[in-house]
Formats: sequence, C-alpha cells, structure tokens
Amino acid sequence: MSDAPSVTPSDLEPADPAEAADIAWMSRALRLARRGHYTCDPNPRVGCVIVNAGKRVGEGFHRRAGEAHAEINALAEAGEAARGATAYVTLEPCSHTGRTGPCSQALIAAGVARVVAAMEDPNPAVSGRGFAQLREAGIAVEVGLLEPSAQALNPGFVRRMQQGLPRVTLKMAMSLDGRTAMASGESQWITGPAARRQVQRLRAGASAILTGVESIIFDDARLTLRADQLELDEADEIVRRQPLRVVLDSHLRLPLAAACLSQPGRTLVLTVAGAEDARSERLEAAGAEVVTLPADRAGRVDVEAALRHLATREACNEVLVETGATLAGALLDAGWIDRLELFVAPTLLGSGARPLFALPGIDSMQQQRRLEIDEIRAVGDDWWIRARPRARD
Amino acid sequence: MSDAPSVTPSDLEPADPAEAADIAWMSRALRLARRGHYTCDPNPRVGCVIVNAGKRVGEGFHRRAGEAHAEINALAEAGEAARGATAYVTLEPCSHTGRTGPCSQALIAAGVARVVAAMEDPNPAVSGRGFAQLREAGIAVEVGLLEPSAQALNPGFVRRMQQGLPRVTLKMAMSLDGRTAMASGESQWITGPAARRQVQRLRAGASAILTGVESIIFDDARLTLRADQLELDEADEIVRRQPLRVVLDSHLRLPLAAACLSQPGRTLVLTVAGAEDARSERLEAAGAEVVTLPADRAGRVDVEAALRHLATREACNEVLVETGATLAGALLDAGWIDRLELFVAPTLLGSGARPLFALPGIDSMQQQRRLEIDEIRAVGDDWWIRARPRARD
Repeated sequence: MSDAPSVTPSDLEPADPAEAADIAWMSRALRLARRGHYTCDPNPRVGCVIVNAGKRVGEGFHRRAGEAHAEINALAEAGEAARGATAYVTLEPCSHTGRTGPCSQALIAAGVARVVAAMEDPNPAVSGRGFAQLREAGIAVEVGLLEPSAQALNPGFVRRMQQGLPRVTLKMAMSLDGRTAMASGESQWITGPAARRQVQRLRAGASAILTGVESIIFDDARLTLRADQLELDEADEIVRRQPLRVVLDSHLRLPLAAACLSQPGRTLVLTVAGAEDARSERLEAAGAEVVTLPADRAGRVDVEAALRHLATREACNEVLVETGATLAGALLDAGWIDRLELFVAPTLLGSGARPLFALPGIDSMQQQRRLEIDEIRAVGDDWWIRARPRARD
Repeated sequence: MSDAPSVTPSDLEPADPAEAADIAWMSRALRLARRGHYTCDPNPRVGCVIVNAGKRVGEGFHRRAGEAHAEINALAEAGEAARGATAYVTLEPCSHTGRTGPCSQALIAAGVARVVAAMEDPNPAVSGRGFAQLREAGIAVEVGLLEPSAQALNPGFVRRMQQGLPRVTLKMAMSLDGRTAMASGESQWITGPAARRQVQRLRAGASAILTGVESIIFDDARLTLRADQLELDEADEIVRRQPLRVVLDSHLRLPLAAACLSQPGRTLVLTVAGAEDARSERLEAAGAEVVTLPADRAGRVDVEAALRHLATREACNEVLVETGATLAGALLDAGWIDRLELFVAPTLLGSGARPLFALPGIDSMQQQRRLEIDEIRAVGDDWWIRARPRARD
C-alpha cells in the first residue's frame, strides 16, 4: 500500500477520446486474460479483443495449454471483420510455431491493421520478434498500454522467463499467537472453511505445491485441488489440472503409503545423491517421480537447485509452499519467499504449540525480518494477511 | 461485531419529535461524559445537559474525583434557568453525601421539573435511591434512554460496583509470528510510535497497570503516562493522575532500583505471607507499598484476591495488564481477561523469541482458546487487534 503511486492532477484529466477507447479495450482484454487464471498454466494468461470501426468484432483468452491462444480465439470470432481492425492483446503475440501456430502470422493473415499490446514477451530470447514480424507486414504496433496490469497477470511466468526461477508464495494457517499446529502435529482445523476455500484457490493458481517431507509425515496432506472446496463456477474444469506436488526429501523418508502418492496428478520427490536406490525404486513404484539434485552444505536438497529445476524442467511459474516452521524459516531466511499468504484464526494455542517460523539466525531486534503488509481481509471468522518480506536494512 | 444488534425496519422509523429531542440531548450528555474519560477515575464518567423550553441552558461533566459532579457543573451554568427544566444525565444522580454533596438534592433545590437518566447507579446498595428522592420531590423521572451507551462509558466502574472486581484488559505488543521479545528480553521496539501512543492512551484510561515481577526484572518498565507521548490536548492535565502500578511479586524479587519505584504515582507490590520482612521494609523505603495477600496452591499471589483487593481497597475500575507469557497465560487460562488489546507489528522474530502466551493446559485443538475479534485497525505500520476471549465451548 505504501508503494502506491501518488495521483497527480494531470492523472485525473480526461484522456483524449482515442486514448480513452484504447484503455477501455485493453482493460477488457485484461479481464478476459484473467479467465484463464486457474487453467492455462504453464502458459501465460492472455486476453485479446478485436475492434473494427469502434465495434468489438471478436475476443478471446487462453484457457488451457494445448488449446488455442487468445488471438486465435478472437480472430475466429471476428472472421472477415478482422480486416482493417485493431487487435488489443495483453502480451506480445508469439512468433514461434507452438502447438497452435504463431499468432503473429495469424494476425497478419487476417489483415489486422493495428496491434496494441500491453507488454513484450518476457522471454529475452524471443521478445520483440512478434512485434517485428507484425511491423514487417505493415501493421502499426504500439506497446506498453496498461503494462503494469499485464505484468501483474503473470508474475510467475515473467519471473521464469527472465530468471529461470518461479515466483514463490508461502501459505501458512496460524493462530493469533503464531502457532500452526499442536505439539502432536494436530492442526485440523485452525482456520475455518472460508479460509480453506481461499487456500484451495491459491493452489489452483499455482503450478506446483512445495512441501517438506516432515509435513507429509505429520499431516499426510493430499495437496490436491478439490472441486467441491473451490466454490468456483468452473471448478470441474479447473481440477483437470492438478498442481505438481513437490516434496523436498533428502533422505527419502516419504512414506510409501503417503496419501499424496495416490491422488490425481504428479508427485515429484526431490532428493540428493546418496539416498538409497532401492528406496527410490519403491517410491517410484508407489507413484512418485524421484529426482536427484545437488545438496547444500548441510547435505539437504539445495533450494536454489530445486527452484531452478521446477522452473526450467517442470515449467513452474508459481510455486506455493505449504510446510512447517523449519523449511518455511529456511526459505524466508535465504530470501526465496516472494509473498506470504497468512491465514490467521482468532484463537490461541499457547507456547507449547508449533511455531510459525524457525529463524535461528535472529537473536537481536536488529535482525528481525520486517514485512510489508499489502492487505488484511476478513475471511469467515479468520483473517487473511497478504504480505511481502522487506529487503534487509 | 457479531454481537451487534440487527437493525429492524421499525428501528429506522423516525421517532416522535419529543423522543427525538430526548435522544439528541442524551447523546450530547454521553459525549460530555467522555470528556472525563482519562481524568475522573475512580469515579464514573458522567455527563449532564439541562434543557429549558427546548433550549440548552447548562451542561457539564465530571472531570476529576474531588471536583464537582456533572449535574453540579450543569446546574451552575444554568442558574435560574434550571427552574422547570429537564436534566439529562448519563447516570442516576447520587443520593449520598460525597465530597461534593448529593446531586439529587441539588437538582431538587434548583427546581428541575424532569430528569431523564440513561441508567441506574450500578451499586446495588444505593441504586434507585437518587431517583426515589427526585420522585418524592415531585420530579418526573425517566430511566433507560440510551442505556447501552451509558453502560459502555463505565464498564469497569459497573463491574466494580456489582461484583467487587475490576474489568481486566490485557495489552500485548507482538510480532506477526506471535513473539513479544527476543530470548534475551530485548523488545524495544517491536511496534512503532503510533502503537505506543495508543498504549499510552490505554494506560491513561486505566485505574491500574498490573504486571509480574519478571517483566520488571527484564524490562525495567516505568509503567507511567508520559504527557509527550499521549498526543492529547489535555495531556498535562491527564498525567496528573498516574495509574496505580501493581506488581505481583510472591518472593519480593522486585529490584530496589526498579525504575517504576521512582516515578510519579504509587507502586503497589502484592506478595504473600512468608516473604521476608526485611526485604519488604527495604522495598517500602525504596518507594513501594507492600501488601500481603493470600497465596494460591502454587504459593503465588492469588489472582482473585489481588483483583478483589484492587477493586475494593484501591477503587480500581479498569486494570490494564502488561506482562509476559507466563502471567498472561495464567490470567487468560483462569478466565480473568475481559479484553485483549494486541498490537501486531509486521515483522517476524522466529521461534527462538519469547512467546505470547504460555498455556500449559492446551495440548489438543479441542482445548484451543477461541477469541472474538471486535476490530482490526491500522496504527502506523502496525495493526491493533481488539478482541475478547470466548467462553469455552
């Protein structure tokens, strides 16, 4: 909130009518793009509106990887009316032949006269190529309208394309005194159904759910999307894509009977060299995929290697971490957490219960980890705190 | 919030003009009463408006114990215009001869024709007597207008009069992960200046500040009001009354050099029989008043005895507890906490830091202590959570 740009009087002046129309159509394209929020992973959320002589003649969004891109859907609706039209797209049209053919060529073939795009392709290897193809074909191209909103549609995708890393969100459910479970591990349920529904939606927007093997041993969580808990119109459609389940398990302690191994979707177990081959084979027989990664100095799976693996080999844009105090603290301490989604129940569990974060490096107030709180919102009887770690002073 | 009465259509119908006028004048009397909020302890906050022929002819409130009551101030302003007037008072006029004479007699002497009072005197030994005196003198008396607001002005006073106990508010400053200090005891400052200003105002509204000796040993807190931190117009006036400082100290471990012993105002040390007399004498020489109370089964000062002592012997309406996890947990567990005022800083201190509540009795989710949250409010960079413990299921 404190980062919000201040509004100056000139921001409030009416734009000229042509600019106002461009803004309105791009806003519509952004809204369309959001309709792919829960389904298009690992592709970016993209929307497109085609306008001819001031009238919308076609629109579309990208619903699911393997299906048509936003531009193709919009052109199909526009048909002949695309000739001479303006296409508003939230992301640079692709120039490479993917599963559905390059969108730049489709726009050229349809005879579009002008393309207004909110942002360039964030992949440095291809960014600008789509625009270049359009311009070579004589199409007027404008880039950057409402770019911040377009960037915000796909923060994980942008991160992956630019840095080879996913965006990492840590979700925790806690009591008001900062406790996540009883000493026994019992934690069902600290928060109420409304908060758990929001957690389901966070999962639905994530490419992968990352946890530590300890959490599985204690909770035996399934880490799945459940259509009945999402309470969204397209819930059945959404749960067709289950986020990848990822377990950090340096010593292959994952129980063969773990519930997550028998759920729809994939479970990836990340381990280090030296864990016995026999155990690895038995886990794979039980439904896991075991991947060996470099170890950190403590002999555990190196977190950076794990995140890079997820971004580059598994095309993960957004990783949702659901875990206990030790792994959560280690990730926070090493600076891997981009966002915190904290669900706080109005209850006290006392100091014998499990803590939120182990942060062994902190022993003076100067070393505290300050957060920037973006929002506090009531969800049922609980409170949802959305925050970001602040850079250390 | 969940306790708010629902508004029915009939509540929204306009009252008849006479009733609407009564409500408006009583609302004014309630606002006047609040002007004594920080100063009139241990007396109740009371306001009075005198209205003759539809015009306000006098008004007053009770500013400070030993000074005039609200009715006397209002009558003084009204003078002869009180004759035949209506007096609106937020509390039953007193019938006993206190330091300023009974208000019921003053109203009779001034020739007031009608008295509208929001509530009876909560002291069962005298309630109704003031009204009876007025009625005997031929004055029309109506009781109960806006009573909930009048009760809310003086919850501690009402509690003390009716139960011989103070209302107890627990204030804590914590990190988002439920930590109040580093392991070393270092805690300055978890919350920012805006939150600390609100804490000063909570102290200013309290009769006494209660703490455990451990907190003093760790923090050497002064537990005083500071005019420069209150940021209120009448700060200098307010700090003339320093809340009583109360230290639970079963073994008389309070350091003779404790800062609280040399501050303006009184420091009461509550202990149990058996603490050595010599230590007691030295503490008194250092500025403390030492009182011996019954011990509980663990040999510590019995909390109920301490609270009853504060209500009945020290006329404490509101006790603000500022202490650590052990005493806070014990008070909560025994059901002594009426309200929680939690100041939450957007920071993480980690599981090595000090916990909010020791609640040794809780080891399953079923035993959790649920809270009712009344309000969450931003104060500077921090958050102020106002809550009440829920009755156990």
